[in-house]
Amino acid sequence: MKNIIIASTSTIHGSGYLDYILDDLTVLFKETEEILFVPYARPSGISHDEYTKTVTNAFAKINKKVKGIHTYEDPIEAIKKAKAIFIGGGNTFVLTNQLYKNNLIGALQTAIKNGIPYLGTSAGSNICGLTIKTTNDMPIVYPPSFNALGFVPFNINPHYLDPDKGSKHMGETRETRIKEFHNFNNQPVIGLREGSWLEVKNDSIILKGHLTARIFEYNKTPYEVNPETELDHLK
Amino acid sequence: MKNIIIASTSTIHGSGYLDYILDDLTVLFKETEEILFVPYARPSGISHDEYTKTVTNAFAKINKKVKGIHTYEDPIEAIKKAKAIFIGGGNTFVLTNQLYKNNLIGALQTAIKNGIPYLGTSAGSNICGLTIKTTNDMPIVYPPSFNALGFVPFNINPHYLDPDKGSKHMGETRETRIKEFHNFNNQPVIGLREGSWLEVKNDSIILKGHLTARIFEYNKTPYEVNPETELDHLK
Repeated sequence: MKNIIIASTSTIHGSGYLDYILDDLTVLFKETEEILFVPYARPSGISHDEYTKTVTNAFAKINKKVKGIHTYEDPIEAIKKAKAIFIGGGNTFVLTNQLYKNNLIGALQTAIKNGIPYLGTSAGSNICGLTIKTTNDMPIVYPPSFNALGFVPFNINPHYLDPDKGSKHMGETRETRIKEFHNFNNQPVIGLREGSWLEVKNDSIILKGHLTARIFEYNKTPYEVNPETELDHLK
Repeated sequence: MKNIIIASTSTIHGSGYLDYILDDLTVLFKETEEILFVPYARPSGISHDEYTKTVTNAFAKINKKVKGIHTYEDPIEAIKKAKAIFIGGGNTFVLTNQLYKNNLIGALQTAIKNGIPYLGTSAGSNICGLTIKTTNDMPIVYPPSFNALGFVPFNINPHYLDPDKGSKHMGETRETRIKEFHNFNNQPVIGLREGSWLEVKNDSIILKGHLTARIFEYNKTPYEVNPETELDHLK
């Protein structure tokens, strides 16, 4: 009964927060007027209230109300009662840590299994994979585990970046980092470029947006897939 | 009795491995002919043997022999008997995990306190700070702790990168990431650009190389310091 959008980013260059994907969010959230927002990832360290304000303004454009999970006394109950859930971007370690701290992993998995529509962007997409081991974020807090929600049977690399051939910087490219990941892990990784998302409906997983995505399978040469490709065979 | 070089990178664009810093390494390692190399960070996933070969070739230029710690039956003994230690770059999580697994944290701290000369580059420099929470690396393995060796009383951000103002990528800049770090941690962070290093002698910590470094102190505006600046007051 899964009904999920896993987006690389909340915002594409030159447009407003969630603007590029609002049409699809109207469809995803068509059965509800209120969305439960999880602001735990705190981009740039902003407060839960500030972050919820940004999200409230964005969803007002498609006539949806937003309530921050931090305003509930019991966050587990909030998840159980939610008609729709959005987990936004920021720092994946901070987000994961707070989900474990509030004991929300199981509650989220149950909600999504029951067909509650879910939107993730950036860090909120990272946690849809098997683990957070392919995040780009800085490990500013130590979470009790790197295991994530496992809504899809592979790992996500959001904000995927192609190597900059003109660069003189000696830090690893994204592709090198994912190659290193496969020295210690064997699940596939999907490099989702900004503006791309995965539409998950039951067992179907389709690449959406205008761009190709880069697939990294264990012991295989990485390859590109086109929009509208069905990815349910990756595991 | 500390005698340490903490370098941002092993290699600067357009030159060979360690070439830019060999003169200073001749001085650092002047009392010994053999260096114990710790290849645990495995850049691009290369083997301990392959990595040790690269390092052996580099140090041959200044007539030093290199022995990989992985060739010893007892790595703790290897550290105890070492006359000089080099921990190279790669993945900071993989390196940290292996140091904990082999129970080497205490042995390294004792060796450095006793004045054994130490060189760290990239991941091998990250671990010289209080924690690895300001690494740029992908968390491809889950170490038992993010606590590091604490040779200096602050955190290191190697391969420090200035914001690219022309970029259309929406991922966080390095400065934003370190700002997020300071929402959860209060120690200073030194952003070391490629080609810069810290020379630590007893309690003195001096910035070396031709570039400025960027200092991030808790609740302060970040600022630049010039080469030859004494940084022993940062903590």
